[in-house]
Amino acid sequence: MEIKNFLEINKNKEVVVVQGLGFVGAVMSLVVSNSERKDYAVIGVDRKENIEIIDDINNGIFPIKSSDPKVEEYYQNSIKKGNLLATYDTSAYSHASVIIVDINLDVQKNSDSKGNLNSFNVDLDPFKNAIRTIGKNCKKDVLVLVETTVPPGTCVKVVKPIIEEELRKRHLSVDEIKIGHSYERVMPGPEYINSIKNFYRVYSGIDENSAQETKKFLKTIISTSKYPLTKLVNTNATEMAKVLENSYRAANIAFAVEWSRYAEEAGVNLYEIVNAIRLRPTHSNLMYPGIGVGGYCLTKDPLLASWAKINHFNSDDNLEQSEMGVKINDKMPHYAFDFMMKAFAFESLVNKKILLLGVSYRSDVGDTRYSPVEPFYLNCVDNKAIVETHDPYVQYWEEINVEVSQDLEEKLDMTWDLIVFSAAHSKYKNPEVISRISKMSNVKVLDTLGILKEKDIEELNKNNNVKVLGRGDI
Amino acid sequence: MEIKNFLEINKNKEVVVVQGLGFVGAVMSLVVSNSERKDYAVIGVDRKENIEIIDDINNGIFPIKSSDPKVEEYYQNSIKKGNLLATYDTSAYSHASVIIVDINLDVQKNSDSKGNLNSFNVDLDPFKNAIRTIGKNCKKDVLVLVETTVPPGTCVKVVKPIIEEELRKRHLSVDEIKIGHSYERVMPGPEYINSIKNFYRVYSGIDENSAQETKKFLKTIISTSKYPLTKLVNTNATEMAKVLENSYRAANIAFAVEWSRYAEEAGVNLYEIVNAIRLRPTHSNLMYPGIGVGGYCLTKDPLLASWAKINHFNSDDNLEQSEMGVKINDKMPHYAFDFMMKAFAFESLVNKKILLLGVSYRSDVGDTRYSPVEPFYLNCVDNKAIVETHDPYVQYWEEINVEVSQDLEEKLDMTWDLIVFSAAHSKYKNPEVISRISKMSNVKVLDTLGILKEKDIEELNKNNNVKVLGRGDI
Repeated sequence: MEIKNFLEINKNKEVVVVQGLGFVGAVMSLVVSNSERKDYAVIGVDRKENIEIIDDINNGIFPIKSSDPKVEEYYQNSIKKGNLLATYDTSAYSHASVIIVDINLDVQKNSDSKGNLNSFNVDLDPFKNAIRTIGKNCKKDVLVLVETTVPPGTCVKVVKPIIEEELRKRHLSVDEIKIGHSYERVMPGPEYINSIKNFYRVYSGIDENSAQETKKFLKTIISTSKYPLTKLVNTNATEMAKVLENSYRAANIAFAVEWSRYAEEAGVNLYEIVNAIRLRPTHSNLMYPGIGVGGYCLTKDPLLASWAKINHFNSDDNLEQSEMGVKINDKMPHYAFDFMMKAFAFESLVNKKILLLGVSYRSDVGDTRYSPVEPFYLNCVDNKAIVETHDPYVQYWEEINVEVSQDLEEKLDMTWDLIVFSAAHSKYKNPEVISRISKMSNVKVLDTLGILKEKDIEELNKNNNVKVLGRGDI
Repeated sequence: MEIKNFLEINKNKEVVVVQGLGFVGAVMSLVVSNSERKDYAVIGVDRKENIEIIDDINNGIFPIKSSDPKVEEYYQNSIKKGNLLATYDTSAYSHASVIIVDINLDVQKNSDSKGNLNSFNVDLDPFKNAIRTIGKNCKKDVLVLVETTVPPGTCVKVVKPIIEEELRKRHLSVDEIKIGHSYERVMPGPEYINSIKNFYRVYSGIDENSAQETKKFLKTIISTSKYPLTKLVNTNATEMAKVLENSYRAANIAFAVEWSRYAEEAGVNLYEIVNAIRLRPTHSNLMYPGIGVGGYCLTKDPLLASWAKINHFNSDDNLEQSEMGVKINDKMPHYAFDFMMKAFAFESLVNKKILLLGVSYRSDVGDTRYSPVEPFYLNCVDNKAIVETHDPYVQYWEEINVEVSQDLEEKLDMTWDLIVFSAAHSKYKNPEVISRISKMSNVKVLDTLGILKEKDIEELNKNNNVKVLGRGDI
């Protein structure tokens, strides 16, 4: 459908454009188009390269598979209402009262094959270009709401000057532009929609008017009576809040990493210890050991923060601990691989048949971006093992071009030298799966996430050899 | 009173000896002697050097001042019951069914005057000697319950062999000895007694019988129906749990330190950001910036853990992040001092009159052990300032031999160049205090803990110059 026709059908509705139709933007579009407080016409804009996503959305196929049934329900409702359109036509921006920026801002990591992060860089150019496209097309009084995780300082030092420059080129006043910042806390998975709609938000603006308009808009899409908004004093503060909270999470995981080694050396079960400590309310977020940290945020946000400290605020020092957190976490899958080699006393993996159960970075989510299973898989393949993968949420592992099986039955009928629990999907916690594996003989089982219970391990150990990362049974 | 007389008065009661009458042991003695489940005769043993503490306890003066009224109430009840005695006579151990080890186990830090931790050492000898005294005197079937925070591995590698060696020297069987480990989570302060009696506990034993007896004993003094005990598989595990939880706390504080610098560089208020993030249940324990970390535990436990990794479990690596946490935290008071010099553009402190409000390491507690206010104070004195101190909970600052004023009225009547909020005692949060300071003129005010509210700061700034650490107003 043409934008023109879409707007005719949706006349009298305020137009909201969502820039970027990835894991955040696509679902954000659904939430806005399903607002109960205000009737919006929502146009999702992505680049022409992503024409498949655009076509899917326009043709009745929502491009993100989710275990949250609300995603499909919201999408069907948007179709029924006819107030959602996807396009790569940048003229869409010219109709918007609100433009939500949900594009990526990536970190380029320079790491070796062992996962050692030697250096990194932040290239702002793609982000700047996207903002420039807005500036070239937007109304002079639009609200640009940045949701992208950006290096602190970006709204004031990057977004504002670019948009103003483009408005001036078009001989428009720069006095009415509004730029707000409010970050989402999206959790792909069974609470996908709720994690946007029913959760706390922090917001700010480059001036008081921008902050007020941001608040007004957020109130129409988020359940702010139950989850009140928190206003911070400026965009530097909200930008910092976002990277701080993700850095905290990443650092807390990294903290567990060194104790997981310690537990193995001392022959104690770290899961058991962590469970005991978590009873303290102040320690309830202590992390378990695992195969590693994945996803788009925790693997890079501490670096964005550290980069901005030097590049936007002229500090002499980087964020030492936060960078260290990323470095330690990046090594986790390699450590898991080394653990496996040592725990099973493998001299070689040549022609060993290995089944990886789960390739996504998070349980019950089909997201393979920066999945820690990737380096683990590649290590196995590099060592000439024959590796197959299964994941109920992933058909095709895009990052490394691997077909992923959906047929667990079939995989469990085959013969394996080693089965690895590499994602904690609920499907794998089924007693039937344990029972099937326990009947195989001479298969080795590696649990990288502590998903096996004591009784599972006992059952499996009758015929097999089970090792759990962080359990001290190396 | 002689032990003999005490035992005659308390005949038919099981004798519990508490070794060490410090912040844990003294209050633990009260909790045991006030057990509602079983009648105990409690003997607290400390070394002859601590005769003052011993005499105080026996003469109606409880040696630890606390804001928890239950401490005095429990003590008075113990006097009434006549089932609490303090002594340095080691023959006490020979009467005990249970000996609770609550002595110190210290780390020797080698730091420079700027707070840089260059190296550290763990000298186990004093601890070993104390355990040996037990072995020389105890019954062969006593339960030795270690509560001291020890390097993981200590119960098995140190306590057990020493006691067995001494039993053998006395030609006693070593088969009936029971050694348990269960760590307290004591919080001196308004919930002192509750933090022992009404809180979760983790326990273990060197064998199943030891674990069972430890559990049986703990059930008589702790409200285990409300706060169920957690059994871990061995003493290595519980010893590790204790140092892990304190290392986690220390690392979480250290994490806030580098972000507090960042906030100052970016001109944003970290307290405001932390408050916004804390709404997330997974991030509710994010820490505020502050003057530093003090007390007996967080300043050393990560080092104990790291030491044991190498010395008890033959690891090649130390706990890098956990040691780093201590190192960063040790620098905090020095950073607060540097912040003050810079924020107020002091060229010199010579003859500047400085008032420190609060010298203890924790709010509403009279504990100056490893207080971060100490290096801050010493920095001021070294720079030839005239420094006076006030603390409602501390009369005499033992570590550095300084008299501490109790008279806030008097101090606020005097003239100061600088007033520093250095502990977050509730007394200082009184609007009256703010009002008094706001009427002074030309006094500078440093809030190292973010205890001033926005309106306090406005009021104070009418006549004065207020700076808050981590608030971005450098």
